[in-house]
Amino acid sequence: MQVVNTRIPVALLGATGLVGQRLVAALEGHPNFALSCVAASARSVGRPYGEAVHWRLPGAIPTAAAKLVVEPCDPAHVKARLVFSAIDAEVAYDTEAGFAAAGRVVVSNARSHRMAPDVPLLIPEINATHLELIEQQRSTRGWGGFIVTNPNCSTIGLCLALAPLQASVGIESVIVTTLQAISGAGYPGVSAMDLLDNVVPFVPGEEAKIESEPKKIFGHISASGVASCALEISSQTHRVPVMDGHLLAISLRTRERISPQRARRLFEEYRAPGEIVALPSSPERLFRVASAEDRPQPRLDRNAGHGMTVTVGRLRSCPVLDLRFEALSHNTVRGAAGGTLLIAELLAARGLLP
Amino acid sequence: MQVVNTRIPVALLGATGLVGQRLVAALEGHPNFALSCVAASARSVGRPYGEAVHWRLPGAIPTAAAKLVVEPCDPAHVKARLVFSAIDAEVAYDTEAGFAAAGRVVVSNARSHRMAPDVPLLIPEINATHLELIEQQRSTRGWGGFIVTNPNCSTIGLCLALAPLQASVGIESVIVTTLQAISGAGYPGVSAMDLLDNVVPFVPGEEAKIESEPKKIFGHISASGVASCALEISSQTHRVPVMDGHLLAISLRTRERISPQRARRLFEEYRAPGEIVALPSSPERLFRVASAEDRPQPRLDRNAGHGMTVTVGRLRSCPVLDLRFEALSHNTVRGAAGGTLLIAELLAARGLLP
Amino acid sequence: MQVVNTRIPVALLGATGLVGQRLVAALEGHPNFALSCVAASARSVGRPYGEAVHWRLPGAIPTAAAKLVVEPCDPAHVKARLVFSAIDAEVAYDTEAGFAAAGRVVVSNARSHRMAPDVPLLIPEINATHLELIEQQRSTRGWGGFIVTNPNCSTIGLCLALAPLQASVGIESVIVTTLQAISGAGYPGVSAMDLLDNVVPFVPGEEAKIESEPKKIFGHISASGVASCALEISSQTHRVPVMDGHLLAISLRTRERISPQRARRLFEEYRAPGEIVALPSSPERLFRVASAEDRPQPRLDRNAGHGMTVTVGRLRSCPVLDLRFEALSHNTVRGAAGGTLLIAELLAARGLLP
Amino acid sequence: MQVVNTRIPVALLGATGLVGQRLVAALEGHPNFALSCVAASARSVGRPYGEAVHWRLPGAIPTAAAKLVVEPCDPAHVKARLVFSAIDAEVAYDTEAGFAAAGRVVVSNARSHRMAPDVPLLIPEINATHLELIEQQRSTRGWGGFIVTNPNCSTIGLCLALAPLQASVGIESVIVTTLQAISGAGYPGVSAMDLLDNVVPFVPGEEAKIESEPKKIFGHISASGVASCALEISSQTHRVPVMDGHLLAISLRTRERISPQRARRLFEEYRAPGEIVALPSSPERLFRVASAEDRPQPRLDRNAGHGMTVTVGRLRSCPVLDLRFEALSHNTVRGAAGGTLLIAELLAARGLLP
Repeated sequence: MQVVNTRIPVALLGATGLVGQRLVAALEGHPNFALSCVAASARSVGRPYGEAVHWRLPGAIPTAAAKLVVEPCDPAHVKARLVFSAIDAEVAYDTEAGFAAAGRVVVSNARSHRMAPDVPLLIPEINATHLELIEQQRSTRGWGGFIVTNPNCSTIGLCLALAPLQASVGIESVIVTTLQAISGAGYPGVSAMDLLDNVVPFVPGEEAKIESEPKKIFGHISASGVASCALEISSQTHRVPVMDGHLLAISLRTRERISPQRARRLFEEYRAPGEIVALPSSPERLFRVASAEDRPQPRLDRNAGHGMTVTVGRLRSCPVLDLRFEALSHNTVRGAAGGTLLIAELLAARGLLP
Repeated sequence: MQVVNTRIPVALLGATGLVGQRLVAALEGHPNFALSCVAASARSVGRPYGEAVHWRLPGAIPTAAAKLVVEPCDPAHVKARLVFSAIDAEVAYDTEAGFAAAGRVVVSNARSHRMAPDVPLLIPEINATHLELIEQQRSTRGWGGFIVTNPNCSTIGLCLALAPLQASVGIESVIVTTLQAISGAGYPGVSAMDLLDNVVPFVPGEEAKIESEPKKIFGHISASGVASCALEISSQTHRVPVMDGHLLAISLRTRERISPQRARRLFEEYRAPGEIVALPSSPERLFRVASAEDRPQPRLDRNAGHGMTVTVGRLRSCPVLDLRFEALSHNTVRGAAGGTLLIAELLAARGLLP
Repeated sequence: MQVVNTRIPVALLGATGLVGQRLVAALEGHPNFALSCVAASARSVGRPYGEAVHWRLPGAIPTAAAKLVVEPCDPAHVKARLVFSAIDAEVAYDTEAGFAAAGRVVVSNARSHRMAPDVPLLIPEINATHLELIEQQRSTRGWGGFIVTNPNCSTIGLCLALAPLQASVGIESVIVTTLQAISGAGYPGVSAMDLLDNVVPFVPGEEAKIESEPKKIFGHISASGVASCALEISSQTHRVPVMDGHLLAISLRTRERISPQRARRLFEEYRAPGEIVALPSSPERLFRVASAEDRPQPRLDRNAGHGMTVTVGRLRSCPVLDLRFEALSHNTVRGAAGGTLLIAELLAARGLLP
Repeated sequence: MQVVNTRIPVALLGATGLVGQRLVAALEGHPNFALSCVAASARSVGRPYGEAVHWRLPGAIPTAAAKLVVEPCDPAHVKARLVFSAIDAEVAYDTEAGFAAAGRVVVSNARSHRMAPDVPLLIPEINATHLELIEQQRSTRGWGGFIVTNPNCSTIGLCLALAPLQASVGIESVIVTTLQAISGAGYPGVSAMDLLDNVVPFVPGEEAKIESEPKKIFGHISASGVASCALEISSQTHRVPVMDGHLLAISLRTRERISPQRARRLFEEYRAPGEIVALPSSPERLFRVASAEDRPQPRLDRNAGHGMTVTVGRLRSCPVLDLRFEALSHNTVRGAAGGTLLIAELLAARGLLP
């Protein structure tokens, strides 16, 4: 079909993991991108993707992807100019740098490069201006390509839920308790013994990310990279027996005391920049305000806007800080595969792909 | 057996409900109390308890209790001087008042009388001094008996977790997010459809109790009843698929900034008053400090101290307030049946039973 | 839009229940049918559907349906000629008969009329010939309309899984153990306390249906209605904590001993009659044979063919009977809403709608 | 205390695994045995057990056990004459043989030696006579010690549920569908992603054991070991999200057609041999017949008889074979740790310990 020829070829590093699988599924039928190469660790190399992967998503493996032979995560074997990385943080640092050095554009889910001052940590609706860092990154590092990173899945939900408030009244401090889905831990990930008749008050590594990444995302570009914004965050993370959808219980203090009514209006009236709304993975509405007093709920609300919409609810005054509410976002769509696609779509729209 | 003859006969109102069942189970083999009468709503009256109850606890119904014929919740049919009430709040107000007027001592789990200024809302380790209200209550109301109330199950866990800090350094404000077990909603209670692959960010009626009851419990006796203490609490409640055990994620501000190390010592060195420790239902240690970074967990920790111990963990500085930590308590033992027994044991020890 | 004008108006009785909700969702955008009327019990009558229903499906209520005002389940208020019934069995008998008497075509999910000898109990792929009963039904009862019934959700999965074997080699006896999803019990349905860390070896009323309905479905038309086929079925039913998807562990004896290999080919080579395949709700393939040894699994396989495909797996010889295997079908799609639509589509295709 | 001095020292191989943990817990306070040595793989050797183990059971690690230093699984380091083995099957064959050759009595949970014709596969209530094999085993192999094995956890529940019927009327064939708890897979074992909103129709390796082990257990001693009994078994296994307790849906054909009433009496009137009843781990009653139509249920019934009682229910005629019913047994107590203890207690009672 003609259309296919015009789609941009994309390679996927770490294609056999759970985020990789979500990306494979999301790329099926994508209007701009065509999955042309899957790469993974040595164990899978040389096998057809359909055999190498232990597919954990409902539905069958996309037929075309199933036939791709798995390549090593090496620019010599991976020809595409646009590369999505879903590889483990342990190996991501060097591997992704290698691809960028080899002239490729890397959109990464790994945490390895997220906090580097010259690497955009991007949520397109919030800090598309941080793409200015790319020039700085390339010139400093002498790379032909560059790296853009997708934040942690909890960070994304939190920052989106804070964005309209931050833009209008400014936020001083946030206390957030997370109830996080198991898909965030990959497969096999969490043992069934740990989450049957149980919740676990700790998600390894998560709290440090939730407390630091938003400061960069809401930060401003300066000569030396991104300057962190002043925003104090305290998080207590929990793993709960939910497949997908991170729920956040948020209390916050704003610079000018905000009423729940005004906060509600900010969410309802929010419109993403036209440039973002035009992207294929952008939801029609970034926010949905639940009216029922027992919502948002992961099972019922996570797929709003094809998993790209954030649902907020229970907006009330907080007797200790100013405002409290609940926010839900889909951790493997908005928080991983969908967020990655949205970034790549923005790069394409801005003509930043080679 | 001789021992039995010296045990105090106890009647149980609302014996067929879930808290009632827990009390029936807890009274089996109790050294001080003997269950002599079970009462419930009209539907069950006249049937043997073993047939009237839809027993939902592991293990069989205690044999002696199973044979008791269910009586109506009326002092004319219920002879015991000591009465445990596990009836619904809708009918509890008048029914319990009727028993107190008829000279009975009522220890109640219902919320109806909890906030009355002359009714003790009692956690024996914290505010046993509030028993002084009994005289005030009897003289004001002209009752031969009196009512003492057991707080809400989440309130109990929260107040116990706050108690050593409140006593030593004083607490100004608390933000608490709850992850609550389903047994708190009774049977059938929550639909399985609401908690499979899901959590619900709302427990009806719970937040108002959590935010008001602690002010009374930590309050001081005055001429006109209990004077609320100054303590600002914000709660966001969640129902999670856990059978028993309410987990609380707590952040708080103390009057003098407290370090996690000092807080930990306060929990470790806490000893309940000797009078309380001597009661049969009192745990050996009121607090256990979990050392693993992923504890407390409901399934693994709820039964500490036969369900009467509170487990705390993850004591850390809070970048927004002062201190944050997790606390777990068994909602139907410490938070209901066990708490009720402990109150009654204290009344017996102080010679307050008729 | 022009297309809408040509769609057949459909009324839905019992629109607020869970099967009703599934039908409302399934009718959105249906090429042949347009939901023109929702009816329910007195409690909901007069309110907009969007307010009367406690919507339990992911996603929002279809906008057009949400605005419909709920009517009483009475032909005087419900004008559509085609009526889907998802009402409780207690009231279905008289209500549905009243609609048929009033000249309407009723496609029912209730059990009330299923076993009447002149009422088709229909699985279009299996016994479309039973539509011949309609004439018999109308003349015997003097009805202007008629009733066609959709079988029990477990029956549908079982009969479909047996159909290719029954057609080729004949089945003598079946032992089936079910692991059934909670959505089959409606909302609130099963208590969360019954299915957390638990399974229940009993689904009320289900075993009698599973053991009797297939005999009628596989039966032949005779002068006096349907003659049951000789097929002995034993079922042991279980409720398990799965949202959707009934899993069946089947052992059976065939008239001519069948090998697993031949059984597999029968499933793989099965093609539904062209008349059925052409219907909008018919899946591309009725059967999918899972190759992994741990499939079918409800979460991963229930949505095959948009929930209309039956997945079979683990085809093996049975050392006691002949053949054993696992079959999975979506209980609220194929087993309820989708099955109902398929029947109505067949009626439309055959020109049996008034 | 005097009593302690007379307890028999026991070593435990594989002490850090889940069955090992259950054995450590069960041995605390055991009247006959005292845990004197824990052994495990190289990773744990040299560390105190309390640090080496990732304790997954509710409650704390028994204090005395926590202080034991982990030894290698080698008779040179493990001095006790009585050895419980909970090690993985991969290494169990040689390790256990090594201990037996070194004069030790090994009671094993591993499958390695179970089917050897001269090794007792023991369920004390059923085939205590198989202990005669010990002499044969020792003389054939030239061992100073010997091995006795505990059957697979599902086998134990099945054989116990069949035993009274087999003894009275003889069983020809059995079709059993299992719903098995996750604790049977150890820790971390099953991924939470596989059992949230899901069941898995396959337990690796289980079906072969369920279909073969009972033939040996019900077999008779002959000159050449155990002669298998004629008993055809077909099993379909399922993993379900239950912590403990394997539920079995059983249909069977007896040699003389048995009524459900008679079967019920056989269970109710069953009394284990006096020699077995006298053992400390023997339950008061081996069987409990549930009267409610929705029992046995894992959560409510698994702990009957401290986890050593088998609960049966739903006894009904089977229209295909003769009799069908449900049976539940605790897989890690009766099916593992408790079964192992019972065997060792029998060996002690018979004077078979060195």
